[in-house]
Amino acid sequence: MTSNDASADAPKKAPAKDPWELPDVSGLVVGVLGGTGDQGRGLAYRLARAGQKVILGSRTAERARAAAEELGLGVEGADNAECARRSDVVIVAVPWEGHAATLESLRGELAGKLVVDCVNPLGFDKKGAYALKPEEGSAAEQAAALLPDSRVTAAFHHLSAVLLRDPEIEEIETDVMVLGEVRADCEIVQALAGRIPGMRGVFAGRLRNAHQVESLVANLISVNRRYKAHAGVRLTDI
Amino acid sequence: MTSNDASADAPKKAPAKDPWELPDVSGLVVGVLGGTGDQGRGLAYRLARAGQKVILGSRTAERARAAAEELGLGVEGADNAECARRSDVVIVAVPWEGHAATLESLRGELAGKLVVDCVNPLGFDKKGAYALKPEEGSAAEQAAALLPDSRVTAAFHHLSAVLLRDPEIEEIETDVMVLGEVRADCEIVQALAGRIPGMRGVFAGRLRNAHQVESLVANLISVNRRYKAHAGVRLTDI
Repeated sequence: MTSNDASADAPKKAPAKDPWELPDVSGLVVGVLGGTGDQGRGLAYRLARAGQKVILGSRTAERARAAAEELGLGVEGADNAECARRSDVVIVAVPWEGHAATLESLRGELAGKLVVDCVNPLGFDKKGAYALKPEEGSAAEQAAALLPDSRVTAAFHHLSAVLLRDPEIEEIETDVMVLGEVRADCEIVQALAGRIPGMRGVFAGRLRNAHQVESLVANLISVNRRYKAHAGVRLTDI
Repeated sequence: MTSNDASADAPKKAPAKDPWELPDVSGLVVGVLGGTGDQGRGLAYRLARAGQKVILGSRTAERARAAAEELGLGVEGADNAECARRSDVVIVAVPWEGHAATLESLRGELAGKLVVDCVNPLGFDKKGAYALKPEEGSAAEQAAALLPDSRVTAAFHHLSAVLLRDPEIEEIETDVMVLGEVRADCEIVQALAGRIPGMRGVFAGRLRNAHQVESLVANLISVNRRYKAHAGVRLTDI
């Protein structure tokens, strides 16, 4: 238990900032690398539907434009490099297999950008899904290592692409755990998650604690199989 | 996404068992190794309050008896060996540092028992908590390796000892992720969790996916610090 009570004798400190007081992010352009995949397209759809300007990125501009056109809502498509260049916040939703190579090739375009890694390194066999352990500790820490000039955070790991993409569903009842080293960067990502009805963006630690958040998806896959569901995570008591 | 639809041509299978249909566990004796620690005592209190027969285990019988007397509710105290011997289900709530040695010394007493590991291997430094990676993969897998004749599961990782032990709190609004290799064993643990008002026991995968469940506590500690809360986890859409 962490006590935050100031004793009567303690020197006066500024009152703790309200953790739910988040910046206005409505004017930011959000790029989604790997935006033609299920997860990327689902996130792009929800963010655009919430009023965010979204650019889908893909290896080829044509595929991105086709996917963007299908989504509507003002979403644009571009190749990954242009997507990164034109965006303020760049969500990385590429398959784990292409993660390192994609980020390395975009190091210049991603310099100075707020990068949000949402990749889950998983393996699959007959017994189901299991966590892969990247050498750097997690996909997010790999991103941070490959992108020394970017502001790397991690978030949006536990969302069901099926729910995200279902236009009948108005609210996605789930919390988005946001990890990162710099509070202001995390708060932008938290605010972005909070724009999607039903979602809250919750600060959940530093990047060194990203591995377990990424790999919890293996457990959600087991839950989905047993309960025939699209499970998500809510944090209680906050 | 896992499709569970049987096609019209498929051979007829028995209908899938309702995952919420769980056994009656009200007659089982539950032991809590490390039952004088915060987590163990909190769990013992909640289970006893829900009507379960509980035996607190500790290294010395006297300490266990003193803690049991304080709890009341018919809780008994014993040394860890007697606690294990007399219980049907044995919850392991010892500190990570003593995990391997305690289990090794109880191998005989725990043979045939349903063991529920709830230990979170964490390290702490100036930046907060971080996951430790046991050689076996997780605390639960270490338990399984050390106790070849026991039925090892993992559960009860994300509970706040503060909430568990607060007698004013009637319901603990949280889900308990239960991991294990054998469905019948997991269902007993799920049913046990479900006896505590507000809790659900949810099957969440095999032991090889225990590490991320154990280490998610590091993230909950970050959440608690930022939001001044006692955070827990709820799974949505189930």
